[in-house]
Amino acid sequence: VTAGVRGARDVDSVLGAYRLMVENDLEAVVAEAVDDAWMRGAIGYHLGWADDAFRRLPPGERVVGGKRMRAALALLAYEAATHEEGRDPDLGVVLPFATAVELFHSFTLVHDDLQDGDRLRWGRPTLGTVCGPAEAINVGDCLHALATGCIGRLRTRGVDPSTVDALTAELSRTAVELAVGQHHDLAFEEEAHVSVDRYLGMICRKTATLLRFAAYGGARLAAGPAKAAPYAEFGTALGLSFQIRDDVLGIWGTEAVTGKPAGRDIRRKKKTLPVVFALAGGAPQSDRMRSLYARHIELSAEEEAEVRQLLDEVGAIAFAQDQAQVHHTRALAALAAAARVPDAVEANRYLSDLRHLADFATERRF
Amino acid sequence: VTAGVRGARDVDSVLGAYRLMVENDLEAVVAEAVDDAWMRGAIGYHLGWADDAFRRLPPGERVVGGKRMRAALALLAYEAATHEEGRDPDLGVVLPFATAVELFHSFTLVHDDLQDGDRLRWGRPTLGTVCGPAEAINVGDCLHALATGCIGRLRTRGVDPSTVDALTAELSRTAVELAVGQHHDLAFEEEAHVSVDRYLGMICRKTATLLRFAAYGGARLAAGPAKAAPYAEFGTALGLSFQIRDDVLGIWGTEAVTGKPAGRDIRRKKKTLPVVFALAGGAPQSDRMRSLYARHIELSAEEEAEVRQLLDEVGAIAFAQDQAQVHHTRALAALAAAARVPDAVEANRYLSDLRHLADFATERRF
Repeated sequence: VTAGVRGARDVDSVLGAYRLMVENDLEAVVAEAVDDAWMRGAIGYHLGWADDAFRRLPPGERVVGGKRMRAALALLAYEAATHEEGRDPDLGVVLPFATAVELFHSFTLVHDDLQDGDRLRWGRPTLGTVCGPAEAINVGDCLHALATGCIGRLRTRGVDPSTVDALTAELSRTAVELAVGQHHDLAFEEEAHVSVDRYLGMICRKTATLLRFAAYGGARLAAGPAKAAPYAEFGTALGLSFQIRDDVLGIWGTEAVTGKPAGRDIRRKKKTLPVVFALAGGAPQSDRMRSLYARHIELSAEEEAEVRQLLDEVGAIAFAQDQAQVHHTRALAALAAAARVPDAVEANRYLSDLRHLADFATERRF
Repeated sequence: VTAGVRGARDVDSVLGAYRLMVENDLEAVVAEAVDDAWMRGAIGYHLGWADDAFRRLPPGERVVGGKRMRAALALLAYEAATHEEGRDPDLGVVLPFATAVELFHSFTLVHDDLQDGDRLRWGRPTLGTVCGPAEAINVGDCLHALATGCIGRLRTRGVDPSTVDALTAELSRTAVELAVGQHHDLAFEEEAHVSVDRYLGMICRKTATLLRFAAYGGARLAAGPAKAAPYAEFGTALGLSFQIRDDVLGIWGTEAVTGKPAGRDIRRKKKTLPVVFALAGGAPQSDRMRSLYARHIELSAEEEAEVRQLLDEVGAIAFAQDQAQVHHTRALAALAAAARVPDAVEANRYLSDLRHLADFATERRF
């Protein structure tokens, strides 16, 4: 793990600067568009404003319902691109877009938890655990619809119709990509041979495509498609390093910091990057991995410990972290391309904050 | 059952006129927007173009994957409104909208079957039965995204951006309404007391809102919001009579004609209109109904037969069919309001075809 010495330390202040604005807008959108108290409560529970009886919590008692990293990415990309254009950013223009991205992300999390059978997220029972899978499918569908509607709110902020249409079309394409990526993720669980390349293609669709959309859309609201292109590239690279780091944390993270049960990815034999790497190798450890992963049962606690050991021995974690680093480097190159003056990322504090996000994605411990 | 003597007989020719055009456009949209063969196959299976191994079937071997009634409704509303404006209809303008409505409807069916645990639709295993619930959630999400993207295709047909935005916003609102209606439907299963009015409010959101959107949007692409308003009202009334008739068929229909297991609605104690009516009554039969429906188990075959008898004795089927008729009358009044010359529905063959649809919704046996 190299580079980004300020990264992981500074991310709280970077994200924190936008958090309240995003939370307030999320709550305002849901309050305006959903007239049913139960549905508002269910969405509020997932987003952290409501308790498990779906009663609204006062701001002081709310829990973490995600970092809102994707919203911050959209806002920062807009600010950075506006700054490069020599104009003053007006966050009111981009906020509906950032909120739409968070609503969309929330929809995918609610469905993803059902699909993976996950019962904990952010240290709390998942929505499906609280209200059952049928209702959770439904709440996810409602969040998906709210995200689409929220893009339309850009019209009220003076954004021209063709840009609104382009972003709506892009959201649809992103959602199709995500569904295909999710299919590959589910299908990989049944496949004995998943190459590293196919794995990277899957997370590109499943995870990176939404961060790409967030960064591209934010920049697109400040500048034309050509100037927004490096931000799209940044979003993709950020998403890949973020997901690969997630895979590493899924193996080595503790429940206290990740909010998810430790070791679950291994016991469920999830095909994360370190595992895919180890399964594809020629060492005796890879043979043992393949025989453990060929059976149609979850791994025992002893086998989980053995897999950790095997992954260590073949250098799978180091390989994965190096891959995260590759995309970190790619992200920084994209930021340099976004800057008017080459290598002048530090001159634009928003580009600099995006760099902190990239550092965080690659190095984070939570 | 009164009125509409030509209705149910003629509906095949009304729907048949649009069917091939809609099927072709659906397939073209999916082929263009989805680059993954599995996902295309899964969507194709649900829509009737692929077998249960998701292999594309030649046109001659395809099965029924829905009547495409909602697409036909959108196309007919457009034609009727264009005709009233004294212009010639150009179906190329409205087709992307009609296809979007069918894609959206398909998304809701895939998720609805999962939520209800239904294993048969159109006489075939549901998508969730074929590929499992996790993947079916995913395919439904993909269809939802494709529907949104498909509305955006209206731009390529010369529709002005503000109309495209208005229809996209309306789709989002429709989807939120539908999710709330679906929540009420699921919640009613746990509630002992559901009034007829609450039931009608639920189906208004869950079923009628999409038919309203189809009819309104079709007309809106031909004329301004004021002239499209009677079509919205027609769609709502059509949706209500269609759903209430569905409830009646769910009790009295056979698997051969409905494509769903006979008696399933009763055995699962679904709160359909005849049941809601009977449960709310004061007769001894209603007491017996309440005691049968208070238990947390499915009904036996004997109890199913008893419930049929009880529903008959309290006149629940007749009550429901009368309710369908109320909305049929309302639908015809909306058509009269849509005609430039009062009571001149017959002078516009598209309005006349919409009347056949209304007759079908109220009287259909499949």
